[in-house]
Amino acid sequence: MSLLVIGTVAYDAIETPFGKTDKIVGGAATFISLAASYFYKNIYLVSVVGDDFSMPFLELLKSKGINLSGLQIKKGQKSFFWKGRYHNDLNSRDTLETQLNVLEDFDPIVPADCLDPSFVMLGNLMPSLQMKVLDQLKGKPALTVMDTMNFWMDTAMNDLKKVLSRVDVLTINDSEARQLSGEYSLVKASRKILDMGPRYLVIKKGEHGALLFNRDEVFFAPALPLEEVFDPTGAGDSFAGGFIGYLAKTNDISFENMKRAVVYGSALASFTVEKFGTERILDLSQSELENRIQSFIDLVQFDISLV
Amino acid sequence: MSLLVIGTVAYDAIETPFGKTDKIVGGAATFISLAASYFYKNIYLVSVVGDDFSMPFLELLKSKGINLSGLQIKKGQKSFFWKGRYHNDLNSRDTLETQLNVLEDFDPIVPADCLDPSFVMLGNLMPSLQMKVLDQLKGKPALTVMDTMNFWMDTAMNDLKKVLSRVDVLTINDSEARQLSGEYSLVKASRKILDMGPRYLVIKKGEHGALLFNRDEVFFAPALPLEEVFDPTGAGDSFAGGFIGYLAKTNDISFENMKRAVVYGSALASFTVEKFGTERILDLSQSELENRIQSFIDLVQFDISLV
Repeated sequence: MSLLVIGTVAYDAIETPFGKTDKIVGGAATFISLAASYFYKNIYLVSVVGDDFSMPFLELLKSKGINLSGLQIKKGQKSFFWKGRYHNDLNSRDTLETQLNVLEDFDPIVPADCLDPSFVMLGNLMPSLQMKVLDQLKGKPALTVMDTMNFWMDTAMNDLKKVLSRVDVLTINDSEARQLSGEYSLVKASRKILDMGPRYLVIKKGEHGALLFNRDEVFFAPALPLEEVFDPTGAGDSFAGGFIGYLAKTNDISFENMKRAVVYGSALASFTVEKFGTERILDLSQSELENRIQSFIDLVQFDISLV
Repeated sequence: MSLLVIGTVAYDAIETPFGKTDKIVGGAATFISLAASYFYKNIYLVSVVGDDFSMPFLELLKSKGINLSGLQIKKGQKSFFWKGRYHNDLNSRDTLETQLNVLEDFDPIVPADCLDPSFVMLGNLMPSLQMKVLDQLKGKPALTVMDTMNFWMDTAMNDLKKVLSRVDVLTINDSEARQLSGEYSLVKASRKILDMGPRYLVIKKGEHGALLFNRDEVFFAPALPLEEVFDPTGAGDSFAGGFIGYLAKTNDISFENMKRAVVYGSALASFTVEKFGTERILDLSQSELENRIQSFIDLVQFDISLV
């Protein structure tokens, strides 16, 4: 059994109302793999960086059980770089600079010993690259999860829908669900999106929690009301990583277990936003994680007996 | 034991993306009393209407156990009228017309047999009028709940804070909580608002659910994901009515029971938005209500055992 993760490994420079960073490590696959590593150890990361990338950070990923044989390191090239500024409400942001660099001609290659993974997490990336990964796989994974974003809906909708038709779970945010379906009601949106292929849909609503849909059921997990959201970067990816990491660990893709996975994903996201970049999820203790899960239980627990 | 409700009884004309109405019955106290009447019968409504108001509707309220001896009917005057248009997302609206009419010189008078109520619901109204009601009371109610809105924060903040210092529970929406406290984080906002007097704070987030805070605890109740939100008018008032009606019925103001009350309030609100005005909550059956509560339980129920 293995978990295959594809997505960016990158540098970010972030400005929030609380401060700013120089180049720090970011990227969808980084957050996904780190979050998943709290639950599952046989993780293969497929991505690309330049030789400007921090080797100590790659060593750290390896120490977490993340196999980097599918991470291409391009000599003389620079890593993908994103610079952004969050607005005061932290719900919206401006992109100040994007340097594709090594991403420009990225050709993902899945390592030979991970061509039949049990779990696949397609992190947010150009849909044609997500497809390239699926095309290399030999067997049918137990579960394939796809994350994407509005940018690809605007620029590569056809490719996006092709990938979507081949995955089991889609994770997007509420405005993206509305854009993809053309429906304002999330209940109606979920039905239209499930018609496009996936059996499950997770709608991430940031500070308002997350919804999990299948054809017949819906589950809602709140976001933890936090004292301070410091930096939202990577929250959605950390959610996805916690979600699929928990599913891989338990090897159970029932709706009941997916509900638990949504709660674990929400917990990982709630840590990520407390500090810049990956800082908060580099070294969580088991008791920190359990206390956080208990907070989620306490937050929504109520006892009504209908006679 | 009795439940005293103050607020508007009014006419609304509403436009939504789904249709428009001529004058229909609305008003905070109308929604509050109707919602509360599903749980509790000894309700006193204090308000004012003109003699243009529908007498059959007043008879209907009486038939629900709502005492109207505190409802002033002004001969030759017209009832408060509000006309509004909701935007496509139903989260924002424009006021097209406001006729204060009888509200202009409303002097609320609490009936002699309700001067010592156990529960008091101050519906959204000019804070000085809410205060006039509190000033007439003889005993100390078990629980006083105050609803208000941004308009009063803009125009009568001093009066609003005086009322706030005398109530047990405040119900407002998230942007109002931020305005009142000057804090973006709802956790920080709750602390500042609890410093202003109330022991409990309910933050209503519309389609994103509701948060209940006291000094040490927080509870989150989701909103039910609905196929279609038809008309949001009265949702917050229906929430407040279900909330205080359930508390009055059970006569238990512990945090645990307040959590249940938030769920019942959310259920009543989820019915109200399904049709125009009060239509959907005029005649709910017990089984409709119980099925809705069960939907709330199913929506958030998950089972994680931390060892």
